[in-house]
Amino acid sequence: MTDPMIKRVVIENVSPAVDHGRFPAKRVIHDPVTVSADIFVDGHDRLAARLLYRKAGDTGWREVPMHLLNNDRWEAAFVPRHLGMYEFTVSAWIDRFATWRSQMEKKRADGQAVSLELQEGAALVKEAAGRAEGPDAGRLNRLAEKLRSEEAAGHPDAAAGDPALTRLMARCPDTGSRIEYPEILPLRVEPVKALYSTWYEMFPRSCADDDPARHGTFKDCIKRLPYIAGMGFDVLYLPPVHPIGRSHRKGKNNSVQAGPDDPGSPWAIGAEEGGHKSVHPKLGTLADFQDLVEKAREQGIDIAMDIAFQCSPDHPYVKEHPEWFQWRPDGTIQYAENPPKKYQDIYPFDFESSNYESLRNELLGIIEFWIDQGIRIFRVDNPHTKPLRFWEWVIGRCKQQHPETIFLSEAFTRPKTMYRLAKGGFTQSYTYFTWRNLKWEIEQYFEAVTKTGVGDFFWPSLWPSTPDILPEFLQLGGRPAFILRLMLAATLSSSYGIYGPAFELCINEPLNPGGEEYLDSEKFQIAHWHLEAPQSIRPFVARINRIRLENPALQQTRNLMFHPVDKAEILCFSKYTDDFSNIVFVAANLDPHHVHSTWVRLPFEEMGLEKENSFQMHDLVSDARYLWHGGHNYLEIDPGTVPVQVFRIRRRMRTENDFDYFM
Amino acid sequence: MTDPMIKRVVIENVSPAVDHGRFPAKRVIHDPVTVSADIFVDGHDRLAARLLYRKAGDTGWREVPMHLLNNDRWEAAFVPRHLGMYEFTVSAWIDRFATWRSQMEKKRADGQAVSLELQEGAALVKEAAGRAEGPDAGRLNRLAEKLRSEEAAGHPDAAAGDPALTRLMARCPDTGSRIEYPEILPLRVEPVKALYSTWYEMFPRSCADDDPARHGTFKDCIKRLPYIAGMGFDVLYLPPVHPIGRSHRKGKNNSVQAGPDDPGSPWAIGAEEGGHKSVHPKLGTLADFQDLVEKAREQGIDIAMDIAFQCSPDHPYVKEHPEWFQWRPDGTIQYAENPPKKYQDIYPFDFESSNYESLRNELLGIIEFWIDQGIRIFRVDNPHTKPLRFWEWVIGRCKQQHPETIFLSEAFTRPKTMYRLAKGGFTQSYTYFTWRNLKWEIEQYFEAVTKTGVGDFFWPSLWPSTPDILPEFLQLGGRPAFILRLMLAATLSSSYGIYGPAFELCINEPLNPGGEEYLDSEKFQIAHWHLEAPQSIRPFVARINRIRLENPALQQTRNLMFHPVDKAEILCFSKYTDDFSNIVFVAANLDPHHVHSTWVRLPFEEMGLEKENSFQMHDLVSDARYLWHGGHNYLEIDPGTVPVQVFRIRRRMRTENDFDYFM
Repeated sequence: MTDPMIKRVVIENVSPAVDHGRFPAKRVIHDPVTVSADIFVDGHDRLAARLLYRKAGDTGWREVPMHLLNNDRWEAAFVPRHLGMYEFTVSAWIDRFATWRSQMEKKRADGQAVSLELQEGAALVKEAAGRAEGPDAGRLNRLAEKLRSEEAAGHPDAAAGDPALTRLMARCPDTGSRIEYPEILPLRVEPVKALYSTWYEMFPRSCADDDPARHGTFKDCIKRLPYIAGMGFDVLYLPPVHPIGRSHRKGKNNSVQAGPDDPGSPWAIGAEEGGHKSVHPKLGTLADFQDLVEKAREQGIDIAMDIAFQCSPDHPYVKEHPEWFQWRPDGTIQYAENPPKKYQDIYPFDFESSNYESLRNELLGIIEFWIDQGIRIFRVDNPHTKPLRFWEWVIGRCKQQHPETIFLSEAFTRPKTMYRLAKGGFTQSYTYFTWRNLKWEIEQYFEAVTKTGVGDFFWPSLWPSTPDILPEFLQLGGRPAFILRLMLAATLSSSYGIYGPAFELCINEPLNPGGEEYLDSEKFQIAHWHLEAPQSIRPFVARINRIRLENPALQQTRNLMFHPVDKAEILCFSKYTDDFSNIVFVAANLDPHHVHSTWVRLPFEEMGLEKENSFQMHDLVSDARYLWHGGHNYLEIDPGTVPVQVFRIRRRMRTENDFDYFM
Repeated sequence: MTDPMIKRVVIENVSPAVDHGRFPAKRVIHDPVTVSADIFVDGHDRLAARLLYRKAGDTGWREVPMHLLNNDRWEAAFVPRHLGMYEFTVSAWIDRFATWRSQMEKKRADGQAVSLELQEGAALVKEAAGRAEGPDAGRLNRLAEKLRSEEAAGHPDAAAGDPALTRLMARCPDTGSRIEYPEILPLRVEPVKALYSTWYEMFPRSCADDDPARHGTFKDCIKRLPYIAGMGFDVLYLPPVHPIGRSHRKGKNNSVQAGPDDPGSPWAIGAEEGGHKSVHPKLGTLADFQDLVEKAREQGIDIAMDIAFQCSPDHPYVKEHPEWFQWRPDGTIQYAENPPKKYQDIYPFDFESSNYESLRNELLGIIEFWIDQGIRIFRVDNPHTKPLRFWEWVIGRCKQQHPETIFLSEAFTRPKTMYRLAKGGFTQSYTYFTWRNLKWEIEQYFEAVTKTGVGDFFWPSLWPSTPDILPEFLQLGGRPAFILRLMLAATLSSSYGIYGPAFELCINEPLNPGGEEYLDSEKFQIAHWHLEAPQSIRPFVARINRIRLENPALQQTRNLMFHPVDKAEILCFSKYTDDFSNIVFVAANLDPHHVHSTWVRLPFEEMGLEKENSFQMHDLVSDARYLWHGGHNYLEIDPGTVPVQVFRIRRRMRTENDFDYFM
């Protein structure tokens, strides 16, 4: 007998599954993980289904009953209480007792005789008694007798629908037809900041507020912490803090020849003083750095380190491990190139090195070194120029020991490479947001990354600008453009960051017209900022970050829902928590120069709202309150005051019906 | 060393793949199979990729070079020349020579010195010489020298771009970085009629044209063949032709009590005279049946048999194999039920029988028996009430021996079960078309089954009516409704069928108002048709089938493209062949009662048309010709004449520029 008993139940399309389970889906600790599946069977039989889950490495499964949504889609949820890898699958079987009861009830309702059916039901219950443990067996045998009795013939519904019977039968189901989904699907449970984090990028060497001539230090960074915490940031990301190479050092504004005092780009890592495990002597000591990490943590801020796996020609690795680099016929090492561009101050590693294993172990060691210094968040520079499987390995290793670590992928490249980096372990990812300014561009992009399964592995981190990118929109749009892009970044995604203080001070002069490089970029020189300058949008930064903190709907990204309006310049979207307890509605005027208005239709049902009632729309930015009612409401946004309105919707206004005196 | 050489190339998302390769995708013999994949690598290296395919069971792969479309999507095609199972996968590697050349050319174009690069290129060519066979090695060595020479330094492009070098290097690529997609994907190659077939359903017992009192026979069917072939049908589907049970036989109009002369439902299979491998004595002998099969084939028609795996209480199986049925406590066999409905004349098989293996082998034997009689097409009755894995097994077995067989799934049930039947081996499937009358319903449904990957396994067979279903739309819409539904079925899908002669005679009286049963249904009594009745739409049937035959665009389904128009009553869609040599544009007035008109915008670029020119729109139904030009054209459709216009687009009208005298 090749197939002694046919399995009739089918389970398909279990989600979340990234590439059919090749990669883990990602969720956040303590957030319910909803698992769904198509489950069906030939004919009219009733089914029972279970979600099975466990922390990876545990033996045995925890089971959660699934329920039918519609169209053969079943669902259940569990709450992961630990960081790291989980796994889950789905099991289902024919519920013979429920099938029997539903058919019996239909016949009964139709007035058909059911005495034969009651005997069949009694047989099912008697069988169950055989499977039951302890006193249940006796109880089930008695209930089976009852079904067979004359009394049941007169009141079959009462006998078959007895809650005690239902309860007892549920305890010892007939799982002879049970089938399991053939795949066990992986899930990675991430820390809260993996999904909800608010980043501030800052060059430590530009922090010497007291003396514009001085190279900033970690101690100066500590003094700057209250400024950063006051704006509501919880991650402080520092460009590389390592010794900087002298060979081919770039000068101000990326000039090929550096002056004697030019500090060089922090990404040209490595000099006599050390490499990726050392700190730049002018910034301070490793102890100073550890002090910064600690002081920041006291103010709720994690320090994020830059991981740039590349070397200046002066890096100790060049002498210690020449086999990690690519050599040319003339006996030189191949520097970084993207023809016709040349980066003579940077030597990339050769990942096809014959000594790849020692290379990858050393690179892992760099990350582990900084983990030992208390770092948990890493922003990885240009990961898309290193092998994708290298990242899968190195991040996998780190997260095995330290599932609380977070890796942000700074890959501005083609979408599939960006997605693959995220699948392979990167927690967050830079996005195209930086260049998406029109309504359709924003809608199309965020629909793609949140609504198509991509959101199961790709978690966007939005940056209105970076030290490499001063977008044209900011160059031309003035202060309203900065406020607009800030608020879009902060509300479209639960993770975003700004490159400060340049951003909050609305610095927008490019090196060349048509280009995206900053004039006098901090990448090549030390900057000194007037933090209290009147154009600073710091109050808006603090306000929007406070709004994020107080509105759980903004601490997620996959809940993003766009709302069509007729005006091309106005973008509307909303986010709400699963239980509708927090509903945020955002309206942005994407034109930083002119007032625009439109009519808005709220999708009441989808938002759990009652159409008949009024709503208070509370603009959390301006603190203005509006009363909206009915399907159609009017919006007008003046970019000169605030280009974005972030409404919290109070779901239902009281009416006289709510008060005692009306009764 | 756990990972001696890192594999940098990534291959993902290879298509077509049904449930990630769990089920085969389906294609038609001699039609190109296009395979695509996401293929990418870190950095800027150039890639080479190959599609690998073979007939299942063959050793070794055939290779086809893939080309890059855009966004890291690669594609190649192969043409399957045999029926049955194929398999395919994708392989890719870094093309070091192409990478080198492209970088060298960019530097050169920028005016940079490239002498070092030429030496590196020479090294690559020398390496290739080591891999080359025969005289290629010497040639490559000479070309390597040439790259190194002074002459090359002066004309590097000429040396590196030498076509001989390109050709020789392509013959011995460095595939050290080669990687294969981890899955081998299955593909089922089907006969042409699997995708393009035109069905006519007919009750043989109603074919005695000469004598209305007589039970029709296979010989009468032979006489009817010219009528059927004359309308252009190539499949003649007969309801079951087996002996019919007498116990609980249903009478006229499904009455519980049959009269002495009532013939019974052909689906109540089995009597003293035999079961599923016998023919009803009143229809003739097995030899008569074979004669019908042969005569039909001579007229280009395949006979499709009905496979209804169920028994009348009189079926020989009931005595021979009581263990194949479900027994009740009172010693009776469980008849078919869907509470509160009862079908006492039908015993379903119990697929959970302890003797399942003998049951499934016998059922396979039934199909094999009819294959031995020359049958290749089977219409399977209610497959969704038998286990889904049973069909996977039984069809798999049949198609292994007879890949030319075709199975049509008559499952009107929930979508996922219908899809799973198709994944499990059914060639064609009944659809919801029968009830989709409004524009949005039609568009939504056909978008779902043709554009979402469903088309890789689910091939729709459209039926405007069946002996079980006389849709309300036909009851109320009169003759124009019949023509409309005929033409929609015939053009939306490459496979469709009608239940005749009731359909072409526009029979539309229901048994009960609001119900979908025919009055005096042929299921329960013998009918006699006036084939020459004036209301017959036979000329339209013949015309549309001729149009299908002459327009290859209509012999496919996944090429369906809807075109939005402002009028809700007018549905517009087009189909075209891959090379645009045949473009068909269909406009249907879905309202059978009133004239409607609209403006139509043709998507020129997508259809391979040139916007500047005029097109001749040739209505193949009325033979009228229209000259259309520009983006916007006017349509008016009077359902009283013909409710559907089926235009063939002549792509380009000549202008004076095309003639010599203008030059």
